[in-house]
Amino acid sequence: MGVGDVSKRILLGRKLRSAQLGETLLPKRIALPVFASDALSSVAYAPDEIFIMLAIAGASQYIWSWKIGIAVAIVMAAVIASYRQTVHAYPSGGGDYEVATVNLGRTAGMTVASALLVDYVLTVAVSISSGANYASAAIPAFQDHEATIAVVLVLLLMAMNLRGIRESGTFFAIPTYLFMVAILGMCAFGLVQALGGSLPMAESAGLDIAPREGWEEPLTTFGLVVLLARAFSSGCAALTGVEAISNGVPAFKRPKSKNAATTLLMLGLIAITMMISVIVLAKQIGLKYVDPHELERLTMDGKPVPDGYDQHAVIAQIADAVFRDFSPGFYFVVTVTGIILVLAANTAFNGFPVLGSILAKDGLAPRALGARGDRLAYSNGIVFLALMAIVLIIAFDAETTKLIQLYIVGVFVSFNLSQLGMIRHWTRHLATERDAGERRRMIRSRTINAIGLSFTAVVLVVVLLTKFLAGAWITILAMTFFFIVMRGIKKHYDNVERELAADETDKALPTRVHAIVLVSKLHKPTLRALAFAKATRPNALEGVYVSVDQKDTVRLLEEWDERNTGIPLKVLHSPYREVVKPIVEYASAIRRANPRGVVAVYIPEYVVGRWWEQFLHNQTALRLKGRLLFTPGVMVISVPYQLRSSEIALEREEREEHRVHAGDLRRGRVVGDDRQTPR
Amino acid sequence: MGVGDVSKRILLGRKLRSAQLGETLLPKRIALPVFASDALSSVAYAPDEIFIMLAIAGASQYIWSWKIGIAVAIVMAAVIASYRQTVHAYPSGGGDYEVATVNLGRTAGMTVASALLVDYVLTVAVSISSGANYASAAIPAFQDHEATIAVVLVLLLMAMNLRGIRESGTFFAIPTYLFMVAILGMCAFGLVQALGGSLPMAESAGLDIAPREGWEEPLTTFGLVVLLARAFSSGCAALTGVEAISNGVPAFKRPKSKNAATTLLMLGLIAITMMISVIVLAKQIGLKYVDPHELERLTMDGKPVPDGYDQHAVIAQIADAVFRDFSPGFYFVVTVTGIILVLAANTAFNGFPVLGSILAKDGLAPRALGARGDRLAYSNGIVFLALMAIVLIIAFDAETTKLIQLYIVGVFVSFNLSQLGMIRHWTRHLATERDAGERRRMIRSRTINAIGLSFTAVVLVVVLLTKFLAGAWITILAMTFFFIVMRGIKKHYDNVERELAADETDKALPTRVHAIVLVSKLHKPTLRALAFAKATRPNALEGVYVSVDQKDTVRLLEEWDERNTGIPLKVLHSPYREVVKPIVEYASAIRRANPRGVVAVYIPEYVVGRWWEQFLHNQTALRLKGRLLFTPGVMVISVPYQLRSSEIALEREEREEHRVHAGDLRRGRVVGDDRQTPR
Repeated sequence: MGVGDVSKRILLGRKLRSAQLGETLLPKRIALPVFASDALSSVAYAPDEIFIMLAIAGASQYIWSWKIGIAVAIVMAAVIASYRQTVHAYPSGGGDYEVATVNLGRTAGMTVASALLVDYVLTVAVSISSGANYASAAIPAFQDHEATIAVVLVLLLMAMNLRGIRESGTFFAIPTYLFMVAILGMCAFGLVQALGGSLPMAESAGLDIAPREGWEEPLTTFGLVVLLARAFSSGCAALTGVEAISNGVPAFKRPKSKNAATTLLMLGLIAITMMISVIVLAKQIGLKYVDPHELERLTMDGKPVPDGYDQHAVIAQIADAVFRDFSPGFYFVVTVTGIILVLAANTAFNGFPVLGSILAKDGLAPRALGARGDRLAYSNGIVFLALMAIVLIIAFDAETTKLIQLYIVGVFVSFNLSQLGMIRHWTRHLATERDAGERRRMIRSRTINAIGLSFTAVVLVVVLLTKFLAGAWITILAMTFFFIVMRGIKKHYDNVERELAADETDKALPTRVHAIVLVSKLHKPTLRALAFAKATRPNALEGVYVSVDQKDTVRLLEEWDERNTGIPLKVLHSPYREVVKPIVEYASAIRRANPRGVVAVYIPEYVVGRWWEQFLHNQTALRLKGRLLFTPGVMVISVPYQLRSSEIALEREEREEHRVHAGDLRRGRVVGDDRQTPR
Repeated sequence: MGVGDVSKRILLGRKLRSAQLGETLLPKRIALPVFASDALSSVAYAPDEIFIMLAIAGASQYIWSWKIGIAVAIVMAAVIASYRQTVHAYPSGGGDYEVATVNLGRTAGMTVASALLVDYVLTVAVSISSGANYASAAIPAFQDHEATIAVVLVLLLMAMNLRGIRESGTFFAIPTYLFMVAILGMCAFGLVQALGGSLPMAESAGLDIAPREGWEEPLTTFGLVVLLARAFSSGCAALTGVEAISNGVPAFKRPKSKNAATTLLMLGLIAITMMISVIVLAKQIGLKYVDPHELERLTMDGKPVPDGYDQHAVIAQIADAVFRDFSPGFYFVVTVTGIILVLAANTAFNGFPVLGSILAKDGLAPRALGARGDRLAYSNGIVFLALMAIVLIIAFDAETTKLIQLYIVGVFVSFNLSQLGMIRHWTRHLATERDAGERRRMIRSRTINAIGLSFTAVVLVVVLLTKFLAGAWITILAMTFFFIVMRGIKKHYDNVERELAADETDKALPTRVHAIVLVSKLHKPTLRALAFAKATRPNALEGVYVSVDQKDTVRLLEEWDERNTGIPLKVLHSPYREVVKPIVEYASAIRRANPRGVVAVYIPEYVVGRWWEQFLHNQTALRLKGRLLFTPGVMVISVPYQLRSSEIALEREEREEHRVHAGDLRRGRVVGDDRQTPR
């Protein structure tokens, strides 16, 4: 087989490789669970936040709960309508970041990227903390150890993602659909009981809530507005995760945009139904719910509840009431809720590397993140995400309520910039579009995005006003940090590009090649390096040996003469056992003697397979190479000699190549098992 | 200047470099403190151990203290006499390891090496723990925080050694001589007071010691023997460190061996005088001293001492009594004792890399340890030593008494093997020596070594019997571990050597060189790589570009045509953004098409200077290189392009080269400041 054939086969590589790394496009029924777990799971903590905030002024304010639920639902509907426009306009999957960058410029794009990075960390922290809460509702022994459980869960997720999870549609579909069935089924059953008047009351129904100091009745109008604003902004936690589909359009079956838009609509309907049902039902069972830090405000017959009182999450309390006579129902609801929360956290582990690779492509993140399969960069991202989430979990003692304060800012920053970008997008296109029907559609889309923007802008202002001191400042600080880092990286890449830009003077060819082959012993690797060096026919060729021991030197010289390679051997003396310095000095000296020539330094390298063998070999070669790279006019040639054990490493490398990477599924990629396919 | 001149200058490199890295040979008055701190510092804890052990059967057994001191002194004298033979016979500084290896074979040498490695860790742990004890005697606020102080001290030492300490004779001389003055002065002053009957009693003199259960009076003869044996073996802690000089003979002024032997004698006399004086004086002031874990055995008027009682080290109690009316004297003694203990710990940090390089030369440790200035290997050694010491300190709560149980075994294992080796040495030489005078000297030396062996053998047996369960098993386990690791490394190197041995078939030259230059962009580094590749005149030359993005590819192809380099460009398609795999496959394909040829892969590399810039560049190149090394018939050529920021790294590298390395002084090396010398 000639080289021509080979290169043709590689040029047609797509066919060759499609057996190994294929595309699976997702039908809507699978795409929904793949992208919905994050958005749907927020029903497990968003209603809780509304009740907590209203409870500040006592349980009497719970009359507002369903109205706030409706307000959140309206915002959600507007946002979902907006994103339906986005998936049509930007089917490439760049999501908010792409929309902001294209329409509002680099700074807006970087702001959105910073917000998304922070959000991924918070998605993990919030979802897992909430999950730990549900776990402790189901298993009394876990009570008061929520932070520990959450940390363990994050570490488990990290380990699984480092290892590579072979995600499949089923992996997401079963728990997500079970969650829908569980919540909607529970709500339906509960509402039926309520209509029949047989709905049991919540455990906490008998309690009363003392208002926080300064919030006693009657509230001033201003006080009421503030109270409702806070409850509303906390409830907007329900919107987190709805943007996921806009990043995943390429993974949908054709017609991609249409299917994505339909799925988004379905997602919105389900999420809103769930949320409203949960809020209404919680009110029906007489639930009383306060900030877990202020349990002493819960009173029973005028006295504070005892110290050991454990306040379970809203869904857990509802399940407990609805399934009072059927405890498997309770455990089922709580278990699938916990699972969906963990799954939601996992989406962050998937989204993080995807975002990283997009940022890398634009020069905002280390370029290595852009290539698939850079294990190191990829692992670092996962570990970073997990550690930051753990820091937050420990700092906030796994209290969802507190973490939520940090969460919503980032989400709404990207919502806002994305809507604003979309308005710009339509305006720009309207400037050139002549077709009347098309123009009408565009104007309609722009109106939808404008409505979306006005809602999300109001929410962002409310969130900033009500949550800045409660923790949102941390998010803004973290976003600023990411922003500065990205700007720094971009600036560095730009500088380097300018410094490296080719000009006309870059045509001169070196006049001669002086090759030196490093000799430590006269063994196969050295002989191979000598042979390779000879094959390149340099203008000058010599072996170079650093002598640190008289006896060894004499022995080597004898062997060299015996071999009679026809290549001269230069001996450099190094009385202090230094190896690197004499060689670097010698190479520099050759170059100085002939500034238009190039020095080719051949380094024989052993290739070993086991990790510990690495420490036993090539350390000096590595150091030497690092040092020679700083010497102008020198090129460094590694001539590998594969020891038998290197096969172990080769096999490991190949296994590595076929590993599943987090986020592959939502990027529309799937790795097939090609170990059976002939190579 | 031609290349010939250059190489001559480098061949005469010693002269050139002697200004930079010179030798300073130590006169006896400096050599003594450099090598003595470890041995002398043991007087700060060895007497304490004797009193603790005797106290098991109550304070009445303290009558034995000075006799045990004498017994230890006799063993020390024998050991020192033995080592005086060693420094004459082995002036190369290989010490116990060399003696054992040469005379008893590889296994004995590896056993000694294991013992020494363990000892270095224990030297740090014991000295620093004892130092922390003295610190808490001087500063009441440190009381009960000894372990924390010790850990902090170890971390400080580690940081200093990683950074590189410019050791000088003065660095050792001042504290060591001050220590001698302090201890001997205190003892003299105390004995004068004792003779005059005005010696104050120790704080603890009024206490009584309840015997441990089963050790009540009257003791059986067997019981007494066991008691004395335990006290004696603990007291032998005083011998630790006397072997240091035998490792440092090359650092002495000529005549090296004679001077080393004299210094050893001085060391022995001073150490014995100090130890006996301290023991006698401790008895005179009526000191009562028990295992710090059994403070409840200390009684005052029949009642246990109160909970807060803090038992200070023996020297601290003596200083307190002797300088009762002159507290600066107390603080002076305690401070210099603390300093000398830290200095003793520092010798381990110096000795560890020296031993490592000797082991590396013999193939028992990673070879990189053998070359001077392998920062990574060297730093790893220091960090390893510090961490192991910290583990021990924490595990044993910085209690010197407990750590001593682990310490003595290792020391005496190497003493024994070393003496046995010396006996073999003389016997071997006697077999060929004919000169009568020389033979007499040899027989005398052998007798001295035989006496030394008989003493150290008895001590080893006693130590094993009395201390095995108390902790010596840990040492033996650790020694076994090091032994197995060294044997594994040796075996690996031997296997590799066999696999790499050159034979006659290794003469074939590759028939052709097919060069490919990796192109990511058409910038200066790529152009340089293309020029270098062209200069080597390969049989085939082409650029290779991995296409992951249609637009980028088109742009590059246009630029390529514009430049008109005359080199064809091959485009490899990679729909999934993989870069490494297509190139590796292409290289393998070329090689398969021409199995007797060699594929030269040119990789343009940016050389940047700041550590964080490393993450932003070359990550893919690095991964590619790692992968290509496993492909047979491929050589990998790094063509560096030095960015402006690389100068920062070059300067850092050069600073690094001139750094002081721990142990340089005792290897007779000193680094001069050559930044002023013209280059």
